[in-house]
Amino acid sequence: MKFCMIGSRGHFYYVFQSIGKVPGISLEAVSSGCEDDPAPLLKRAKDAGFDPAACPDWQEMLDRFSPDLVAVDGPFDKHAEMAARALERGIHVFCEKPVALTLEDLDKVMNARKRSGARIISMVGLRYQADFQFALRLVREGAVGKVKMVRAQKSYKLGKRPEFYRHRETYGGTIPWVGSHAIDWILAFSGSSFREVFATQTKEDNFNYGELEIACQCLFTMKNGVQAMASIDYLRPEAAPTHGDDRVRVAGTEGVLEVIGGSVILIDRDGRRELPVPPPERELFSDFACSLTGEHDCLVPESETFELTRACLLARESADTGKIIRF
Amino acid sequence: MKFCMIGSRGHFYYVFQSIGKVPGISLEAVSSGCEDDPAPLLKRAKDAGFDPAACPDWQEMLDRFSPDLVAVDGPFDKHAEMAARALERGIHVFCEKPVALTLEDLDKVMNARKRSGARIISMVGLRYQADFQFALRLVREGAVGKVKMVRAQKSYKLGKRPEFYRHRETYGGTIPWVGSHAIDWILAFSGSSFREVFATQTKEDNFNYGELEIACQCLFTMKNGVQAMASIDYLRPEAAPTHGDDRVRVAGTEGVLEVIGGSVILIDRDGRRELPVPPPERELFSDFACSLTGEHDCLVPESETFELTRACLLARESADTGKIIRF
Repeated sequence: MKFCMIGSRGHFYYVFQSIGKVPGISLEAVSSGCEDDPAPLLKRAKDAGFDPAACPDWQEMLDRFSPDLVAVDGPFDKHAEMAARALERGIHVFCEKPVALTLEDLDKVMNARKRSGARIISMVGLRYQADFQFALRLVREGAVGKVKMVRAQKSYKLGKRPEFYRHRETYGGTIPWVGSHAIDWILAFSGSSFREVFATQTKEDNFNYGELEIACQCLFTMKNGVQAMASIDYLRPEAAPTHGDDRVRVAGTEGVLEVIGGSVILIDRDGRRELPVPPPERELFSDFACSLTGEHDCLVPESETFELTRACLLARESADTGKIIRF
Repeated sequence: MKFCMIGSRGHFYYVFQSIGKVPGISLEAVSSGCEDDPAPLLKRAKDAGFDPAACPDWQEMLDRFSPDLVAVDGPFDKHAEMAARALERGIHVFCEKPVALTLEDLDKVMNARKRSGARIISMVGLRYQADFQFALRLVREGAVGKVKMVRAQKSYKLGKRPEFYRHRETYGGTIPWVGSHAIDWILAFSGSSFREVFATQTKEDNFNYGELEIACQCLFTMKNGVQAMASIDYLRPEAAPTHGDDRVRVAGTEGVLEVIGGSVILIDRDGRRELPVPPPERELFSDFACSLTGEHDCLVPESETFELTRACLLARESADTGKIIRF
C-alpha cells in the first residue's frame, strides 16, 4: 500500500500511532500542503522508520507517486479541496476533521466520493482512545439498556495558538474544531443520526483570539429519540493537570455509564463501580487502512464521516443564526 | 412569630432542619391541605418539640390562627392558590417549588404579592446544601473569574411515586419539579436572569409512569451572556449509592469549579484541588424566617422565586412546543 501525507496541522500523528500495524504500507512522500515547514512531518516519518520524499506541491505529489492512501492534515480550509482531489484520483483519504468548513465544501467532497471507488474517514481519534472505545463497546453490548441521554464535554486549555485560529475563514469555528470530538461521541454512543440541533457560542472574553469562540454548547435530538448535549470550551486553566477534560455520560433504561478523567464508571443493577480499562482493541489509522483491503469493517462507518461533518456545520449554523436547525 | 404548615408532599422537612434557629417561632397548627393523612406532619412537628393543632381545612386554619408565616407543601397544583390566599391575608409564605404549575397561576401569586406586605420564597434547599452554598460563595468571591458557562445536573432514582406524578395536571412536569433545582443553581451561579431557553424532554421508556418525562435537557442563555445547560433525568439506577447525583460545573475566565459527589473541586492558576466543604453558613428555612424580621438579607432574593418559577415554566413550554422561548 503506497501512502502519502499532506500537512501536520492537527492530528496527523494518529498515523504514526499505528502505521506499524498496517502490513506492507510504505510512506512514499510528504508535503506540508502550504507554506508550513515540512520538517516536523519528515522527522516523525523518520522516527517511524520511513524515508519519504518531501514535495513542495501536494498535487504534484499525488500525480507523481499515485498513492493508494493519503493523509490530509493541511490548512483547515483546504481539507475539503485536498480530500476531493484525492478521491477524484481514486486515492483513499484519511482526513483531519472536520472534512469541510462549509456545507458547500462538504458537498464537493461527497460528490467526489460518489464518483470515486476510494473511501474517506475523518480523524475521530478520540472515539478510539482506550477509555472511550471500551465504553462504546459496553454501551453497544447493552450495559445501560436502551440509551436515552448522551452528554459530552470537551474542555481544552487555550494555550498559544497560531494566527489562523483567530479567523473563522481559516479556523472554521470552535464547534467544528473542538466540538467535533464531542459530536462524534454523541453519534457513536446514541447509535443514531441527528434529527435536530440548537446551539449557542460566544467570542466574548476570548483572550484576544479574534473570532475564536471561547465557549459553546449544543443540544441535539437524535432520530431515535436520544437527547444529547455537548459542552465545549477553551476555559481549562493552564495549570490543570492535563490538556483536555474529556467526558461522556450515557444514561439509559438500565444504567448510567461515564467516561471521566480516563476512568470508566458504570452504575447499574449491581451498583456503582469503576471498570478497568483494557488496551484499545483497534487504533484509528490501522483500523481504516486495514479495512481498505477488506480484512474487516472499520469502527467508523464511512457514512458517519459525512454525518459528523454535517452535524458540526449545522450546529455552528444554529449558533450563528440563533435558530433551531433540522437535519 | 406564629407559624402554620400546609402539606407534606415535598420538601416540608426543610422547616425542621432549622426551625430551632428561628427565635420565638411557634408552630401553631398544621393541615395536610388535601385528602392526605396529616400524621407524618404531626409526627415531625412533635419530634421537633411542637404540639400543633391539626386542621382538616387549610383556609379555616389560616383564618383561625392568623399566622405570620405559613409553609405551603400541599398538592403541587395547589401551591399557587395556597400561596396567593396566604399572601392576600398578609401571611409570609415558605412555598414548595415550583410556586405555580402554569404561567396564569404564577401571575396570580405575583399579583397577590404586589397587593400584600408579606413575602414569599420557594424551597430551593439545594442552593443551601453545604457543598453548593460553599461553591456559590467561592464563585461570588471570584474563584473562577468572570463566569462564562454553568452546567447543572439532576439525576434521580425514579423509585415508587404516588399516582399524581403520572399526570401533567397534578405533577407539573419533570422540568419544573426536578429541574427547578438545576435551574436555580444556574440562576445563582450565573449571577443573571434568563434571556432565552430551548429544551427537550421525553416520556418514552418512562417505566409506565403516564405523562411523567423520564429525561429532559435545557439550554439557556442568560442576560449577562453566560451559557447554561441543565440535564435532568430519573434514570439513576436503584442500586446507586445515593438517591440523586447532583452536580454543577462553573467555568470562567480564571478557573473551573465543580460540585460533584458532595465534593467541591477547583482548578485555577494554582492547579486542581478538592476544597474542604465547611458547614453551611445559612439554612433555608431559618434564613428566610429571620430575614422577615429584618435581621439580615436572605440568600435567595424574593425576585428569584418568581424568576425561577417562570424559567421552569418557559423551559417546559419550549420542550412542549419545540420552540425557542425568549424571556
